[in-house]
Amino acid sequence: MTEESRSIPIATGVINGGVSDAEAGFDIQPDFEGFHQKNDVFRRSWWDESIKTGKHALFYETYREPLKTFRKADGFTQRDYAFRNAAWHVSNVMSDIQTNEDRWEGFTDPYSLYQGIAAQKQEPESPAAGAAEIKTVSKAFGADLVGIAALDPRWIYKSKFSDKSLTERTNEIPEGMTSVIVTAQAMDYDLIRTVPSALSGAATGLGYSYDAMVVLSIAQYIRNLGYNAVASLNDTALAIPMAVQAGLGEYGKNGLLITEEFGPRLRLGKIFTDMPLAHDRPKQFGVKEFCNQCNQCVKGCPAKAIRGGEPSAERFNMSNIKGIVKWSVDGVKCFNYWAAQNSDCSICIRTCPYNKDYSKWYHRIGVKLAGTRLRGLMLWLDQKMGYGERMKPKLWWQNREDPA
Amino acid sequence: MTEESRSIPIATGVINGGVSDAEAGFDIQPDFEGFHQKNDVFRRSWWDESIKTGKHALFYETYREPLKTFRKADGFTQRDYAFRNAAWHVSNVMSDIQTNEDRWEGFTDPYSLYQGIAAQKQEPESPAAGAAEIKTVSKAFGADLVGIAALDPRWIYKSKFSDKSLTERTNEIPEGMTSVIVTAQAMDYDLIRTVPSALSGAATGLGYSYDAMVVLSIAQYIRNLGYNAVASLNDTALAIPMAVQAGLGEYGKNGLLITEEFGPRLRLGKIFTDMPLAHDRPKQFGVKEFCNQCNQCVKGCPAKAIRGGEPSAERFNMSNIKGIVKWSVDGVKCFNYWAAQNSDCSICIRTCPYNKDYSKWYHRIGVKLAGTRLRGLMLWLDQKMGYGERMKPKLWWQNREDPA
Repeated sequence: MTEESRSIPIATGVINGGVSDAEAGFDIQPDFEGFHQKNDVFRRSWWDESIKTGKHALFYETYREPLKTFRKADGFTQRDYAFRNAAWHVSNVMSDIQTNEDRWEGFTDPYSLYQGIAAQKQEPESPAAGAAEIKTVSKAFGADLVGIAALDPRWIYKSKFSDKSLTERTNEIPEGMTSVIVTAQAMDYDLIRTVPSALSGAATGLGYSYDAMVVLSIAQYIRNLGYNAVASLNDTALAIPMAVQAGLGEYGKNGLLITEEFGPRLRLGKIFTDMPLAHDRPKQFGVKEFCNQCNQCVKGCPAKAIRGGEPSAERFNMSNIKGIVKWSVDGVKCFNYWAAQNSDCSICIRTCPYNKDYSKWYHRIGVKLAGTRLRGLMLWLDQKMGYGERMKPKLWWQNREDPA
Repeated sequence: MTEESRSIPIATGVINGGVSDAEAGFDIQPDFEGFHQKNDVFRRSWWDESIKTGKHALFYETYREPLKTFRKADGFTQRDYAFRNAAWHVSNVMSDIQTNEDRWEGFTDPYSLYQGIAAQKQEPESPAAGAAEIKTVSKAFGADLVGIAALDPRWIYKSKFSDKSLTERTNEIPEGMTSVIVTAQAMDYDLIRTVPSALSGAATGLGYSYDAMVVLSIAQYIRNLGYNAVASLNDTALAIPMAVQAGLGEYGKNGLLITEEFGPRLRLGKIFTDMPLAHDRPKQFGVKEFCNQCNQCVKGCPAKAIRGGEPSAERFNMSNIKGIVKWSVDGVKCFNYWAAQNSDCSICIRTCPYNKDYSKWYHRIGVKLAGTRLRGLMLWLDQKMGYGERMKPKLWWQNREDPA
């Protein structure tokens, strides 16, 4: 560790190479409490009788086993489900390796699928050189975005929870981890346009499968250099505040990370390590101000799970973290909608004006303008042009199969 | 199955929707014999005393466990090995899942990592529609190239072999498989430019890791549609003739598949299935004629493992298939070089004039011209411009870490 990073008083909230909560855009209250994984709505659906119903069980089952009968509804046919579940398959294969030991690798448990740590330590020339090296290999492994932050213990789950044995357990991040590398995998723009549909769930599944591949490879790379590293997908810690600290983007009204490169259309991964690495600084490009004016996610949510108005510390239920003034989402309403339609929903991604195909130059200009006083005009234009409207799932197949 | 494909007399070598061996560019002799996996040089390195030496054991070991000490040589430092092995890691995780049952998934054994086959069968509107659908999802899963051929039993291994128990076993392709879907993953152009190096092995490792992900996802997709599908990486069957029949490219003097999109810079995967699918036709773009004039791979091979001159049925040793007139490579010399330098070698990929970054328009024009009577000029130009020369491994890191 460098002197600089060793001296960071993480516990007081001054973090990320000396970056304050204010710079990260965090408004933490005195009654702040760390999060227990048990209270996450997905975990609750296994133990909390108010959520655990027959519908929820079917919801999970059909991600692994095909339905016996399929609806004729566009976007929910057998091939839509076939594609969605196949997209999840690689993530599932890796998650399921240790189910006999009551582990759900990458999700409720950090991955344990590594070769050992090299005996010889390859210290980078400087933390900056180490960070550049990590970013190089992360991109080579397929990461779409990568940032690094000092590890902030406030975001680490106070305990983890097994869906299978219904037991709370100690979180497993090893002692001495000083940094978190946050990666992001972009999801397919056109698939997300078809939300709500089982088809669009393929974007999620592919995001996870690629994410699994990327974070495992990065962690193994670091271990091959003689440092410790442990990776996970969701869970283990709250990914979004870490991503914000690592400079990937800002927090949005829909409760998601918004990035300049892909908007909210991302899956996040994280690697905890003790390798000496320079840290990125938070990046602001006007999301807070834009979200203040925009309510597309609020209007679009069929479950009414997204609150409009000002950020607040008010919680919908135990699935919200305590003691942070921010935009919050009602995870129970959100998840109930997923279970009712038998597929995950990303309408708040589809309708977000930041959800654009930024390979187009005019969208790269647009996102810059959305960060200026022209934001009102940009929002008006967005709606005028019909971005955010649903594309018929059939069209996704047609456009791909017959590009002419 | 359609009437058309059901009537194909595969055994006589008239294959691929009625395509003859001549159309595929195959010259099969009366003494042709199918291949036993045991004779593959990698398998031989476990049982054949003439190849199985201490060096070979170290060669394999260091792909999993980091070396204890590292050379200072550029391209063979700890971070080069760290990157190479991490790139292999996801492929390894999936291959190793069933080692307790003497299986090496994806390599000496086809993958068995699937969810079941759906009870309801979703028949495509036509074999052509089925093929278009498979290509759509394959590309979405990340395949760089995909083609489909009628399954030709001549290329299926007569038996498979376990490196661990040193036993020959029955090949596992289920009865009734009628088609093979051949996928290709492009390897990183710049990494391959650094051959020979441990660093360049990262291109191979990433190729396999992505390949594993793609073929498993495609096979699971087909199973979710109610058809049978089994995938593998290398092995199970000879990938190159299948890729040629599936229209991915031509066979080259270096013993590799040469494609118009990535030259020889690819890893191949295959999925065997009984889903009714239309088949592609072989594609020729002048490789045979170009290779006839060019000897860059022959000159470049430090092991002198590549034979110049005309295609012939002569075999170097038991690792060559019997009864095909073609360019052949001496696998024993090739592998001995790998073991000696403690990393796989791809010099015959690096030096091949077809190995270009085809995202550049002028190379896309160049590959067309190489298929015309201008091939001599193109070959001269290629050498004049210094394509195929080694890039210093250090430069790969420098260019990526400091792109300015």
